[in-house]
Amino acid sequence: MIISTERRKRPSDFRLERATTLGAEECPFCDGREDLTPPEVLAYRHDGGAPNAPGWDLRVVPNKFPALKVEGGLEREAEGMFDRMNGIGAHEVIIETPDHGKTLASMSEAEIERVLWAYRERMLDLKKDIRFRYILIFKNHGAAAGATLEHTHSQLIALPIVPDFVREEIDGARRHFAAKERCVFCDIIHQETAAGRRVILENAEIVALAPFAPRFPFETWLLPKRHGARFEEAPRQQYEALARLLKSVLMRMDRALETPAYNLIIHSSPFSEETTEYYHWHVELIPKLTKVAGFEWGTGFYINPTSPEEAARVLREAGGG
Amino acid sequence: MIISTERRKRPSDFRLERATTLGAEECPFCDGREDLTPPEVLAYRHDGGAPNAPGWDLRVVPNKFPALKVEGGLEREAEGMFDRMNGIGAHEVIIETPDHGKTLASMSEAEIERVLWAYRERMLDLKKDIRFRYILIFKNHGAAAGATLEHTHSQLIALPIVPDFVREEIDGARRHFAAKERCVFCDIIHQETAAGRRVILENAEIVALAPFAPRFPFETWLLPKRHGARFEEAPRQQYEALARLLKSVLMRMDRALETPAYNLIIHSSPFSEETTEYYHWHVELIPKLTKVAGFEWGTGFYINPTSPEEAARVLREAGGG
Repeated sequence: MIISTERRKRPSDFRLERATTLGAEECPFCDGREDLTPPEVLAYRHDGGAPNAPGWDLRVVPNKFPALKVEGGLEREAEGMFDRMNGIGAHEVIIETPDHGKTLASMSEAEIERVLWAYRERMLDLKKDIRFRYILIFKNHGAAAGATLEHTHSQLIALPIVPDFVREEIDGARRHFAAKERCVFCDIIHQETAAGRRVILENAEIVALAPFAPRFPFETWLLPKRHGARFEEAPRQQYEALARLLKSVLMRMDRALETPAYNLIIHSSPFSEETTEYYHWHVELIPKLTKVAGFEWGTGFYINPTSPEEAARVLREAGGG
Repeated sequence: MIISTERRKRPSDFRLERATTLGAEECPFCDGREDLTPPEVLAYRHDGGAPNAPGWDLRVVPNKFPALKVEGGLEREAEGMFDRMNGIGAHEVIIETPDHGKTLASMSEAEIERVLWAYRERMLDLKKDIRFRYILIFKNHGAAAGATLEHTHSQLIALPIVPDFVREEIDGARRHFAAKERCVFCDIIHQETAAGRRVILENAEIVALAPFAPRFPFETWLLPKRHGARFEEAPRQQYEALARLLKSVLMRMDRALETPAYNLIIHSSPFSEETTEYYHWHVELIPKLTKVAGFEWGTGFYINPTSPEEAARVLREAGGG
């Protein structure tokens, strides 16, 4: 759990739910508004312009209201029975396009692939900082999914610890490997592509499927068919294939579910451990159709009104891409 | 994870977010509308009227759109590498008052205590069904917290499994006990009441505090000072003291946070195991001030912009009750 009091602007302002997302008029992510963000840490410019000036295709900048700070040491300490450390980390924003009117679904496959390469490049760079053990890359699309800016973007957070969900996923995968000497995700891919009922679509490199036990309606996983633990070490053709499949899945969701808000998360191996044999990177995509309420908070499991077989069928039949 | 396709009314209707909650005009929980709910399983009537007729103070009815069904066997089965069982369980609604205009915060202490006794009575009854291993009692107050009906009510779900969050909490408490032969919650109560900085208020039986690592701003725990693993076995004076403290905390939240939506959850021991020495029942109260987005889903940990010390201070100073 991260306590980040700097994200609150006024001490008396405890209500954080923004009524509206920031639209085009005051958007700091549009072409020509580069002075409204911190200086870029990465940019793709096809015509080679100056840094922090117009003419870019994609920009990565530090988050202006970071949840974590890059400077300083971890300074682990105890307070009685409790443990504490400084909130050290990097928090960056990937501005996926200069065009305010685009979404990830409406971008071209080449533009989406460029976003994936930016993820990779930032991960490889931040990995060099030995304080970081995990890099989380995620995207909140739409106000209902937590986006406070309309302009399409992703976020990256580099953490000095391995988050619980990764810990649990990795421990589960390790147990499966210990019992069977096989990757559990490879087993899932084999079973699901053979059965087909929960497969949304696939190409030579990637399969998109509704997982057997989805927490949310239309929860979708995109997995590389060839085993690999780390997103940032994936071969080139996997990014190309992922971009193609991701665009098609997002277009199908837009069509079948009336352009829902969604969260997208890259699941990849921590830096700090050797998971090569048993972990398998993938993307999780969760359209925001229901509200999470007391029951879900309380139990860590979920009431889902849509079966994965039905979700896969609806998205297969929606067409797209 | 529970797949409950019966909760969806029309097959094409995947968007579940209700625009508005059901108000007083069509409220099925008001006095005189007893025919709009399934027949009651429990009711308190101070003037001893007929069942399912007006004149009650509190009613418990089965949920009209249950997430789980009471009838049938568990029928555990495999699908290849996956496991599945029937969604057996009970899903009940505790209608806390016949008065549509009241909230838990505005009810009298005696009325709140009556709600706690109803929880207890239903737990003791449902415990007799050996298929059930856990009973979850929770309350969603306000649309932002997931409530679809305005009229103040709680929910009860009896489950054939122990939910993950309980599993983890119990495993953690068992490890602490194995190392120290002390209950971890008793240790927390001692440390926190001695230090005081995170204590919101307390009486002889119960303490309300901001936990050391709150996932959400103003997350509040109410713990009985005397050790006990099971809510339904608590002594009478703990319910009385809890009702008093709960009212005061809710009034303080209403004052300091502009009557927020909130989730309230009773944490109590599973039926199926002997946790008497090391588990400690309590209530968790989470005002809904922020949206959960990709980062939180992805990591299972949370960015919280308000420190527990600040939250406790604000609620101490808000006065109430």
